[in-house]
Amino acid sequence: MRSGLLIVISGPSGAGKGTICKGWLEKNSDAVLSVSVTTRPPRPNEQDGKNYFFKTREEFEAMIKDNDFLEYAEVYGNYYGTPRKYVQQQLSKGRDVVLEIDIQGALQIKERFDEGVFIFIVPPTMEELRRRNVNRGTEDPDAVLKRFKCAFKEINFIRRYNYVVVNDSVNDAIENIDAIVKAEKCRVDRNLNLIAQLQGGGICE
Amino acid sequence: MRSGLLIVISGPSGAGKGTICKGWLEKNSDAVLSVSVTTRPPRPNEQDGKNYFFKTREEFEAMIKDNDFLEYAEVYGNYYGTPRKYVQQQLSKGRDVVLEIDIQGALQIKERFDEGVFIFIVPPTMEELRRRNVNRGTEDPDAVLKRFKCAFKEINFIRRYNYVVVNDSVNDAIENIDAIVKAEKCRVDRNLNLIAQLQGGGICE
Repeated sequence: MRSGLLIVISGPSGAGKGTICKGWLEKNSDAVLSVSVTTRPPRPNEQDGKNYFFKTREEFEAMIKDNDFLEYAEVYGNYYGTPRKYVQQQLSKGRDVVLEIDIQGALQIKERFDEGVFIFIVPPTMEELRRRNVNRGTEDPDAVLKRFKCAFKEINFIRRYNYVVVNDSVNDAIENIDAIVKAEKCRVDRNLNLIAQLQGGGICE
Repeated sequence: MRSGLLIVISGPSGAGKGTICKGWLEKNSDAVLSVSVTTRPPRPNEQDGKNYFFKTREEFEAMIKDNDFLEYAEVYGNYYGTPRKYVQQQLSKGRDVVLEIDIQGALQIKERFDEGVFIFIVPPTMEELRRRNVNRGTEDPDAVLKRFKCAFKEINFIRRYNYVVVNDSVNDAIENIDAIVKAEKCRVDRNLNLIAQLQGGGICE
C-alpha cells in the first residue's frame, strides 16, 4: 500500500486558502481534510471527529506532552492542534490529507513532517489582498490594516515552502494543486519501493 | 518574460521515451524538441536546423573546446551533442525544451544544467522491458540480452533524477509529464521574481 501525501495549504489571510481547499477536495473524493483537536466547546451541530476532536484542557496538555501534535497553538484561551495520529492513520491507508492552516502552523509542521507538500497561496497582487481583506467588512479599518501588514511580512516565509500558487482564478489554482499532487507522487524519493521492485524483478543473472 | 523549462526525458532503451516525447509535444505545441548537433552526413530529406545541426568534425571539436555542449558523445565514429546555445535561446523565449536522451547523456546534462527537470521513464516491469526489446526484432538475441542487462544496470542511476514515470499506458505517462511540468512551474525556487514583485508591490509604509 502506497502512503498518501500530506498537503499543507497555507498563505496569508485573504489569499483564498479555504475556497481552494474546498474545491480541491470536491474534485478529489478519496482525499480527506485533516480534523483538528480543540479545547473550545462544540457549537450546535458540530460533531466530535468530524468538525473537530473535542478535548478538555487537561487532555490537550497531555497530548502536547506526548508529542501528539504536528502543530498546535493557543488562540484567545483555546487550544487548537493537528493530531499526528489521525493524519498518519489516513496517510497509511493511502489517503491524501489536506490541511488548511496559517503560516505559523505550517512552519511548525514543516519541522516535524518534512515529507509533506507545502503550498503557499498568494493573491495576484498585494493590492488585491488588501481589497479582499477590506471587503470582508467584518472588522474596523485599523484591524484590516494591521492584518494586511502582517500578511505582507508573512510573504517572507514563502521560501520555506515547496510551491507557490497564485490565486488569480480559483479553478486555475485548483488545477495547479492537482498537478502538484500528481507530480509529487512521481518524485523519485517517493518511489524507492517501486525502484527496488523493478530491480528485484529482473531476470539478470 | 519567464524562462522555459528544460525537460530531460530519459530511461532505458525500450521504456518508450520516444513515443512519450512525441505525444507530449503534440499536446504542448508551444514547447520544442531540442535539435542535436552531429557530424554524421545528412540523410535525404533531413534539414539542417530541423532534424540536426550538421557540422564538420573540426567544427564539432571547436564547439567541445568552447564548452558549447550540454552533453556530447561519440558513437560509431560520429559525434552527437546537445548545443547549449540553441537550448538557452529557446528557454529565454519562454519555451519549454524537451530532450529525449539516453541515461549517460542525461547525467552529463545534470552536471551542467541542474535546473532542468529530469524524468526517468520505466517500464511497468523488467520482464516487460525485455519483451519490448525482443519484439523490436532488429537484433540477434545476444545483442538484445546485452542491451537488456545494460538497461537493468542503468536503473541504478534513477536516484539522480527528479521524477520517475511508469510507462504502463502512454496516455497516463503523458498526463504525468504534463503534471510534472505544471508543478515545476509552481516551485518556489522558480518563482523568486514573482515573490519579489509581490513584496515590492505592497502598500506597506
